[in-house]
This record gives sequence, C-alpha cells and structure tokens, in this order.
Amino acid sequence: MCTSLLYTDLSGSVYAGRTLELPVELPYLAAFLPSGTQLSSKAGNHAPLTYESRYDIFGVVVPNGSVEDLKVVEGLNEAGLNFSLLAFADTHGPDDTQADDVPVLSAIDLGAWMLAQFSTVAEVREALEKQTVLVDPLAALGGVVPPFHYTVHDRSGASIVIEFFDGERHIFDNPLGVMTNSPRFDWHLTNLNNYTHLSNVDHSSATLLGQNFIQPDSGIATVTLPGSDTAVDRFVRAVYYAHFSEKADGPEASLRQLGHVMNKFDRPKGASVYSSAKASALTESATRLTGQQPAQKPEFITEYTSWITLIDLERSTVMLRTYNSLGYASFDLAALKAGATGPKVVPLEAFDQGSPDADKVLLAL
Amino acid sequence: MCTSLLYTDLSGSVYAGRTLELPVELPYLAAFLPSGTQLSSKAGNHAPLTYESRYDIFGVVVPNGSVEDLKVVEGLNEAGLNFSLLAFADTHGPDDTQADDVPVLSAIDLGAWMLAQFSTVAEVREALEKQTVLVDPLAALGGVVPPFHYTVHDRSGASIVIEFFDGERHIFDNPLGVMTNSPRFDWHLTNLNNYTHLSNVDHSSATLLGQNFIQPDSGIATVTLPGSDTAVDRFVRAVYYAHFSEKADGPEASLRQLGHVMNKFDRPKGASVYSSAKASALTESATRLTGQQPAQKPEFITEYTSWITLIDLERSTVMLRTYNSLGYASFDLAALKAGATGPKVVPLEAFDQGSPDADKVLLAL
Amino acid sequence: MCTSLLYTDLSGSVYAGRTLELPVELPYLAAFLPSGTQLSSKAGNHAPLTYESRYDIFGVVVPNGSVEDLKVVEGLNEAGLNFSLLAFADTHGPDDTQADDVPVLSAIDLGAWMLAQFSTVAEVREALEKQTVLVDPLAALGGVVPPFHYTVHDRSGASIVIEFFDGERHIFDNPLGVMTNSPRFDWHLTNLNNYTHLSNVDHSSATLLGQNFIQPDSGIATVTLPGSDTAVDRFVRAVYYAHFSEKADGPEASLRQLGHVMNKFDRPKGASVYSSAKASALTESATRLTGQQPAQKPEFITEYTSWITLIDLERSTVMLRTYNSLGYASFDLAALKAGATGPKVVPLEAFDQGSPDADKVLLAL
Amino acid sequence: MCTSLLYTDLSGSVYAGRTLELPVELPYLAAFLPSGTQLSSKAGNHAPLTYESRYDIFGVVVPNGSVEDLKVVEGLNEAGLNFSLLAFADTHGPDDTQADDVPVLSAIDLGAWMLAQFSTVAEVREALEKQTVLVDPLAALGGVVPPFHYTVHDRSGASIVIEFFDGERHIFDNPLGVMTNSPRFDWHLTNLNNYTHLSNVDHSSATLLGQNFIQPDSGIATVTLPGSDTAVDRFVRAVYYAHFSEKADGPEASLRQLGHVMNKFDRPKGASVYSSAKASALTESATRLTGQQPAQKPEFITEYTSWITLIDLERSTVMLRTYNSLGYASFDLAALKAGATGPKVVPLEAFDQGSPDADKVLLAL
Repeated sequence: MCTSLLYTDLSGSVYAGRTLELPVELPYLAAFLPSGTQLSSKAGNHAPLTYESRYDIFGVVVPNGSVEDLKVVEGLNEAGLNFSLLAFADTHGPDDTQADDVPVLSAIDLGAWMLAQFSTVAEVREALEKQTVLVDPLAALGGVVPPFHYTVHDRSGASIVIEFFDGERHIFDNPLGVMTNSPRFDWHLTNLNNYTHLSNVDHSSATLLGQNFIQPDSGIATVTLPGSDTAVDRFVRAVYYAHFSEKADGPEASLRQLGHVMNKFDRPKGASVYSSAKASALTESATRLTGQQPAQKPEFITEYTSWITLIDLERSTVMLRTYNSLGYASFDLAALKAGATGPKVVPLEAFDQGSPDADKVLLAL
Repeated sequence: MCTSLLYTDLSGSVYAGRTLELPVELPYLAAFLPSGTQLSSKAGNHAPLTYESRYDIFGVVVPNGSVEDLKVVEGLNEAGLNFSLLAFADTHGPDDTQADDVPVLSAIDLGAWMLAQFSTVAEVREALEKQTVLVDPLAALGGVVPPFHYTVHDRSGASIVIEFFDGERHIFDNPLGVMTNSPRFDWHLTNLNNYTHLSNVDHSSATLLGQNFIQPDSGIATVTLPGSDTAVDRFVRAVYYAHFSEKADGPEASLRQLGHVMNKFDRPKGASVYSSAKASALTESATRLTGQQPAQKPEFITEYTSWITLIDLERSTVMLRTYNSLGYASFDLAALKAGATGPKVVPLEAFDQGSPDADKVLLAL
Repeated sequence: MCTSLLYTDLSGSVYAGRTLELPVELPYLAAFLPSGTQLSSKAGNHAPLTYESRYDIFGVVVPNGSVEDLKVVEGLNEAGLNFSLLAFADTHGPDDTQADDVPVLSAIDLGAWMLAQFSTVAEVREALEKQTVLVDPLAALGGVVPPFHYTVHDRSGASIVIEFFDGERHIFDNPLGVMTNSPRFDWHLTNLNNYTHLSNVDHSSATLLGQNFIQPDSGIATVTLPGSDTAVDRFVRAVYYAHFSEKADGPEASLRQLGHVMNKFDRPKGASVYSSAKASALTESATRLTGQQPAQKPEFITEYTSWITLIDLERSTVMLRTYNSLGYASFDLAALKAGATGPKVVPLEAFDQGSPDADKVLLAL
Repeated sequence: MCTSLLYTDLSGSVYAGRTLELPVELPYLAAFLPSGTQLSSKAGNHAPLTYESRYDIFGVVVPNGSVEDLKVVEGLNEAGLNFSLLAFADTHGPDDTQADDVPVLSAIDLGAWMLAQFSTVAEVREALEKQTVLVDPLAALGGVVPPFHYTVHDRSGASIVIEFFDGERHIFDNPLGVMTNSPRFDWHLTNLNNYTHLSNVDHSSATLLGQNFIQPDSGIATVTLPGSDTAVDRFVRAVYYAHFSEKADGPEASLRQLGHVMNKFDRPKGASVYSSAKASALTESATRLTGQQPAQKPEFITEYTSWITLIDLERSTVMLRTYNSLGYASFDLAALKAGATGPKVVPLEAFDQGSPDADKVLLAL
C-alpha cells in the first residue's frame, strides 16, 4: 500500500521517497502550516493535548471532519524532519490506563505533533518516552482504529519506525530507512536473511555440462529480486534499489535518480485487483467521505499509486506527483515561509498537471 | 535494453510506449522531417536507394557521420505509423546476392524508409516483399552490423516485427504489440505458454492444513510475474501490464496510464551492472563517437533508461522523457507541420527539464 | 511428464536416470528380448520393416494389441545403448512420400529398432540417415499419432534427441544429455541463456545499506532454480543437478547418487492436478486400454511418477522403482542373457515391493 | 538442515516424515530402549534428573561420550509419541536461576525424557509446565550449547514445537505439523500469509492480449512454490505437499505416498555447497568426534540428507533410509519388544542396503 525509502547521495545528503496506494482517493490536501500554529490532539475522553508549532511544516494531509483538524499523511518540517504514515493492518494499540484529565496524543496526530516540535529523530524518540500515545478510533474511519504505522527520518539519515501491535507500542531503530506495510518491522528485517544472495552484478555467462551459455541482455542480476507488489516483496526491492542505485552528485541529479527508483514502485490501475467485498474499513470510509461511492458497486477494485513524494531533507523541498500527472510539482519550505502569512491548504488535484510553480499555487489561495 | 508495447484505451485507440536502455548516451536528436524531404539509403557497393518522403515524420534519431544521414531509433509519421528500433543480439542477415547496380535498402534505414512512404503496417509488409534489405555494416558502429530488430505499429493496432537471423529475413505478425530484445520473437511467443497462470486477481486467503492465512496487502496476483530486467522477463511483464492495465477514457488519461505502465520498465542507473570488458560494439563505438570515453575505464558499467516515449498513434503526438528529466516533453506532428518550413533537429538534452512547449523549442531552431 | 538426464561419475562412466509421469498406469511390462529375436515395424500401408536383433535388450515396454508387438518406452541393450521415449505435445511428422512397397519405420518402433541393431549413438545417426521414419497413428492411442520424442545415449556419453515437428524430422546433438518435454529441444537450449547466474555456491552473508544479514541455513544457492514441475523448469533443474551433483566413485555409489538426484523429479500424486476434461488422447486411450475407467469420471486427475529407472550404461544394468514401491528392483543384462532361453515379459507391478532378485522373477516366467 | 511434516491418510491416521541434513555423518545408532530402562539427564552443576522409562522407545540416537548417554535425534514410543530434534541456529536459552540441588532437564535430553514417560502431546505440555529445562553446553559439541529445536507429534495429530530463543523457552502449538529450521516458528507461520495464492490446480490456458496460450505439460500449479533449500522455503513446500498430497488408503499406501513427498526434500551431495570455513560448531565437533577430519580441509562442504524416516504413529513402525541406501529398513516396536531382552543399539550404517528384516538385525546384536 505504501513504499518508503531513503536514498543517500555522493556527499551523504539524505532524500526520502514514498508512494501511497489505496483503491480510492482520499480528500488529500497540500498544506503549509507556519511555525506558531496552534495544534491539538484528542483521544477518547482525555483532555486534549495542545501545543504550538515551532517549525514550518509542509505536507500532504487529510481533513478529519474539518480543515481545522488535519491529519498528516506525509510531512516535512523546515528542520528536515520527515514523517510518513503508512498502512499497517496488524495495528493493535495498548489499553488506555490513564485518567481522563491526562492529555494524551492520538496516534493519528503523531505527524503533526512531531513535525511541529522536533528537528531530529533523537528528539522525537526522547519526547515519545514521556508521551502517552493511544490508537484512538477515528470518526473519519467510521469508528475504526487507524491502521497505520509511522516512519520518521531526519537529515542525518537517522530513522525510526513506530508500530502499535500486540497491545504494545514499539519503536524500532530503522538502519535501512525502508518501510512498507505488514507484517511488523522486525519480521521484515529477519526476512532479509533470505536475500543474502542479492547482488547487482550480472553473471552473464556460464558453463553447464560443458556447454557455454551467454545471457545477451543486461539485468540478469535482478533475477533474484522478489517480483510481487506485496509489502514483503516491496520491502526487499526497496532495500535493493536504495542500496545499489547509483549515488548521484547534487540535489537535482539525486532527486531524478530517486525518481527513477520510485518509478519501480509506481502501481498502475488494474495491475492487480481484488473483490470489492474485501475493501478495508479505510477504503469504505473514504468512499463515503469523498462521495466516490458508485451507484453500483464494482466487482473488483484496484490499488494504485495515488501520489509519490521525493523529499530533499537537507534543503527542505518536496516534489509531488499525483496519479493524474506525468510530472512533478515542487514545493520549497523556505519559499512558502517567505510568502505565506498563515496556514495554506489546497486540494491535491490542483497539481495534477505537475507544476514548477507549485509554491505560487499554494500561496495564491 | 528496450521495452516496447501497445496500450489500447476504452474506445480502441492505440498508444505505444517504449524505453531505450544502453550504458552510454548516443548523440540523440529530436527531429522533424516534413513531407517532401529527399532521403536515401546506401548498402555496401550497391547503388543508393533514393526516395522522397510523403509523410511528415517526428522521431528520435542518431546522425551517422553527419546530420544529413539520420538513422531513426523511434519515429512516428502523420498517418500514425510508428517505428521502433530495438537491440537484437542475434542479428545475422542474408548474404548479398544482388548486382551492385540494384539499389537496396540498408536495414538501419528501415525506419526512415517506411515512415516516409507508408501509412499502415499492411502497406509496409507489401512494400517489403518487393524490397531487398541488407544488414550492412555501419561506419558509426566501427564496421559492425547493426544489432537491431524493428517493430512497426499502426493506428489499427496492427503490428509486425522484422528480424534478421540465421541468414534470413523474418517478418512476424505481432498480435501482442510487445517486443523487447533477444532471443527471436517466436521464442518469446512460445515462452508465454509458461505463463498461463497469470491473472491480476489477488487470491488473498487460503486454508492450508486447516489453518487460515490472509495476505494483508493487495498485489499478491503479481507474485508470479518474472522479476528480472532481462529481455525474456520484460517481455512477459510487458504483456501482463499491456493486458491487465486499466483501459482509460480519452487520450490524456490513456497517456498517463501508459506512463505508469512504462515506469515499470524505467531502469535506474546502478540497478544492475556488468564488467566494462563486456561492453558491446555498439557501446564501444558510442563511447568513441560521443567523446564519453573516461580517462580511466570503469570496472563496471550500467544500462539505464536513456529515454521513454509515449505515442498517441491516433492523434500523432509524442511524449518524451529523458533520464535527466522528471517530466515529459510533448510533440505534436500537426503543430510541427504548421510551424516548420523545413527539417528541424535539436539535441535531446534540450528537453531534460521536460517541456510543455517542446514543439516551440524544436521549431525555434 | 518425463525427466531424463545423464550423470557422469569420477571415472567418466555414464549413468542415465529417467522418470515417467502420466495420470494413468499403462499396461507396462518388464521385458527381456535376447539377440536373435525377429522384430518388425509397420507404418500405414507400407510393407513391414523386418529385422533380427543383434543385441540383448531389457526395457519397459507397452504391448500394442498383443505381446508380439511391444513398444519400448525405456530400454537398454547389452552394448550400453539406452533409448527413452518421452511425451512431446508438438509432434507433427513429415508427409508420407514413399511408395507403399517401401518398408518404413514407424516412429513408435524407434526404440526396438535401434536397441536391436546398434551399439552407439553414431551408428544410430548414420542408420537414420538412410531410414525413412513416419509418425504413424497408433491403434492403441485410438488412431492418434504418438506424441513422443526420443532420446538416445551411449556409453561414451554421446546423446541425441529425435523430434518430429513442423512436418520435419529433426535430430539434435544433445551435449547436455538432458531432456524433458515440450517445447522443441533447441528452445530449451536457448532458455538456458536465462540461467547463466546458476551456481551451487551459497552466498550466505550480505551487507545491505550498512547492515549485515546472515542466512543461517545451507542451500540459498538453489534460490534461483525455477520451481515448477513443467517441462521447461524441469529441464533447467535437470541440467543443474546433473552438473553440480557430486561425482561419486564407482557404480554403487554413483547409482545411489543418481537416485538422490532423480528423487528431485519424483512427483507425488496430488502435487498438481488438472481437469479430467483436459485429459490427453494418450490418457484417454490408456484408461480404455487398461480398464481403469472409473464408473464416475473424477473432476481432477493428477500426473505422478509411475516409475523411475537408473541405468548403468557401462555395465548394462537397470534399476527400476515403481510408484508403489519404496525400493528398487535390479536387472542385469548379463544375468538375464545367461538365464533366459527366449523373450521374457512380466507386468511391472511384479516389482512393486522392490526386489534384489528381480532378474530371477523375470526369468522364472 | 531438517524437514519434518505430518501426513494424514484417508482414515485420519497420522504419519510423520523427516529428513536430517548435515555436511558430516554423526555416529548415529539405531536404538531400542525397552520400558523399565533407567535414564537420567544432567545439566550444569545441578543434581541429575533420573527416571525410569514407562514406554518402549525406538529411535536414531547419538552417543554423548558413551553408549550409556544416548541423545535422541528422532524417536518413537509404543504409545505413538514421536519426537524430532532439528537444527535451530537462533537457540538462546533462559538463565539458570535454580539452586544446584534442584534436578533440571538438559534440553538435549528432551527426547528421551518425553518418549520414556508420556503418550500424548497434551501430557508432554503439562509435564513441561512443571519441569525446568536448561540449554546446557554439550561436551560432544566442544562446549557449545546444542543449537536445536524440538517437535513432538502424537497419534491424534496434535503437535508442538519447543524453542529456546531470546533467553526464554517457547512452546508453540503447531497446527500444521510442519517444521524446518530458523527462524523461530511463529515467523514461518506469518510467512505463510505470503502464500495465499498456493493451489494445486493447474491453470493451463490463458488469453492474453487476444492470443491463446496453452501450457502443454502438467504441473504449472507448482510455479509459485518457492524453489530453494533454505529452511524458509522448505517450510512452505512442506506445507504444500502435506496439504495437497493425495490421501492414501491404509498404512502401506500411506507410507509410500509419504515416501514420495519426502523425496522432494532429499538433498543430493553437491546440490549446494559452502566454504568449509563457515562450518558450524556442530559440524566441527562431529568431524572431530567421528574421525572424519580429512588430512586437508576441503574448500567447500555440502549438506546432504543423511537419512529419512517415515513413521506410522498409529502402528508404531519406523522406516529409515540412509544416504547410502536406495531402499528403506523397517522397524516395528511390537516386534522389537517381543524379541528384545534389553536395550539394543547398532550403527546406522548396518542398514545402508535397506532391509526388510531390520528388526532382526537389531535384535541379533
């Protein structure tokens, strides 16, 4: 459903690529939230947790009821902290053991909470140790708990994964910078022990039973890459491409190189389908929410890549390509800060034709 | 090295996508040749074959010595005929049995010859029956025979593959519209009998030995797709995506859908590498030709997707994305015809930033 | 349906292993035919081809109507020539262009014809050049042409494949000694160019994105072996095991080693099934022939390994294991010659319990 | 290194198959221990745990120093309880927190301990709850902790896996009856969610892009089986064959069917190799122990299937095939009980030729 990876260039600068796949379009917004914005999170009957943002934030968000309550799906702050929310079917959070008057953080607000206040993964980790987080049912999901896990990267390349399963919160160091979906992160790590044969060097000739054989094409090295679009196989391929992809020189070449890598995870409509009877709660609620519910339910639905982001953590820029676009829109946190007098949101489809002037489109609203 | 496929939209309109992969950049040009251009082909000691173009042509070409002698790598004419040249390691053409005073066509000129004169695959086939074609050594390749085969599509979706092997010319009907590289086309067709299990429907639950198992992600249908970047595996994947990809409505949505499909065949630098000692004659000559020869030969070289084209055969438009671009440049044969007073060529790198005004860039020269 | 391979031991002696798979049991017989036996072959309206055997033959045969007309499925003669008949769906032989009074050989009699008269593959090849062979419809198959191809090995390790397709007879040198089923032999050879990465050396550790991964088990080298039981995948695996399997010392150890290799091609009932509506003409006729036709046609049928032979070409011994046996029966051409006063046949099920005294069982009849 | 699975026949009777793979031969013994035998286990400085056997036991054992101290690798008791010890690289047991005067069970003695005293998995589970077990370093392994996990089956088909990892003892219910090696059992269970597409039904025809393709062979259903010999892939294949293998009628047919299934896991010498420098502590100590240490260390070593057992839990019989045999030896606990006057052990190589009279061989000693 989502593929997320870190790419490091020749000089060690860090870039993040991610895709988002669902069988429906959520009411995505591109959003700029300047530092000084008042934010809050509410979980269950607990007192709301309120705080003021210390950093400018740009991201792709989804409104929960109103534009006052934005949930960050993918976000970056001016300090180069990058947050991504990805689907995680095994989500099962801890019980609520706190008194109602204790303000707790709802897991769905992890993105806003950390992008607003922290500049590094280490800061996030430290703050989380003191912060109770509950996986709270979400009205926008029809009362279902949000089935997500969360990755956080910073400019140093440090990365963590936050997962709620088996009734506990788990924070994993992520030395690979790669995440996809279920199962739990450490299962994927163990799975890589089954891929020690991976190499990008073509072995293009062999002598078998005295006969010589020649592979006339390049690329036979990739024959052992797992082929499917499931989270498990995408995780392995993401590690492969993040590792073996040529290290480019400078941010422009690096973003292009990352773009080619992310194209490997671009999923066309129809490439795989499943019975619409098996649609997830997330899909069902999205269909209701956005009025995409067709008169007649289709027999099959297909997940596809709604959008891809390429993020330069060093320079705090975000490139974004929607499914309906053949090119990228570019956003620059410094330019947005310089131009914005307050929060700005615009539906993502405004960028369906790509746009070199995406900042202006956002600022114009 | 190259992946080529046809995509058909809801209304039956035909679109062609192709990639080109080499470990070097050839001196590619974007070229517009208006009808009425004088063209010729010379093979061995034969009298040159000369003809005048009846159709406007746009394409990606490579100069053979001079810009007067352009070799078409990918081209489209105003009648919607589309020609692609793809690498074919098994090339071995027929002996020259004609007298020197008989003008014969050099295989490397097949593109110019057919785009200039014909509007359908049927016309091409008929003309080929009367036309001797020789696989003539090419000066630009250091005297090696050009190791290519050739695909031709038209607006009706008709498609053929022209291959020279085992000392004979073969023209195959191509009911799939798909082509990659070696081995010969009919080998690939036979190979598809090993993929009768392909389906795009996810089987996401199973009971094995009394236990229920659930695949939490979408995409398990793709688990049987062959994973590698060799021509054989790309052929199967190209058939899969051409077949199962959702049929879009209208040219804009169709080109976007085709773009997502072609992203599956976008090969990043470094994804696979091979010893530079195994560089082909084509690579070696290209390196010489373009002055890309580095002071010190690298240990490994990597093939990557130099460019991708998305072609609307119905409307005679071409979209083109180079490796150095995150977006597409658009060309429209009608606009070029309207604006051009003669042939126009411009190096492909002029479009490295994508360009909605690509026609103007070309016409401005 | 059948897997056939040659194994060479430390001293260069040659051993042949083969399996036979069908969804039914044919009325297989173990047969000993001493030299001096009168044999004949009849094709269409042609005069019968008659000849006397010069070599003792042991083999697995199927009676065509009567025990007087035995068709060799797997056979060995005292000179170490080994013949195997394997299913070949693409069979399409040449037209009959000879006069009726010319005796021609029916393809189904190739085994008896060559085992009776020749000691080496070279002799077989030479004789075939002068011998017309027709793929004649077989009464026992309900008038269908026998869908088989034929492999011949000798003590030197020389090997050929005889196939009738596209209306022509093809004799291929088989430097690998491996054969399975469709498609044609040279297609399989080309396919091996897609397996140049094969190696039996485990790569059990890797560093990816700075992390070390260890495969705790042995065997990861085999991760790139194609997994399925189709002829195409079995061909590749047969080459792999024939090539990498440890070379043993002496015939006993070699036959055991070959036995382990052939176990890889032992197909259990139920491992794969298909609709009984897709049963082949061969299966249908076998079902009629042997009275195995059940009162109610099952929905699915399953191919399984009816029997496996391990042959020592040097010493002219045959080991045979039926599906109903957990051990092998052993036959020795020298012992059979010493004990037999004429041809001997016994149903194969006589050896369902294995038998160290198999020769005696055969001689006792 | 080991593959273990349960097969259930038409009437619900349960049979167990297992292989054992190492790159060396341990000094295996076939052993019969009648009820009433005095047994003990010693771990660290703890008082020995002593007990008398209540059930007759037959098994494959390895002497630890002397024949008085037998370690059970594979065993069956007269009540139909079946114990198997399999390699488990992740072994890391709990700390020793008991006083020295408390008798504790050494993990390596789990087999003898449970086969001697219990008749069902439920009894074993209950007894384990009260019994401290320590993973104690083993002299025979050069002081290394024995890297094993343990499976237990009973006649009802109940099955558990006992693993010591992360410093804790884990007892998993094993509803599949399948076990191989690392990683931990529940990882394998999760992995099966990636195989929900498994089916044994051949899909042998497909229409792709309007063209019909036919797979001429049977077996394409198996195309999605993972191909390698690593524990992870063998686990999936073992589940596949245990599930889809045809259910036979009666013990003889069932043992033959199980034999065909286990042949799929028979690993020939040379099929994969690894550097002898990576030999495990177990291999190293075995080489010392058995005097197999060659004058010159080989560059590569190969794991192969030392032996396979087929066990009828209902009738308490064991069939055993060593690598050096093409057939099975049969043991019957009732016959052994009837004939034996005390414990009997014989080196496993006594059965290298298979033997229908294996009981007598054992009783004769």
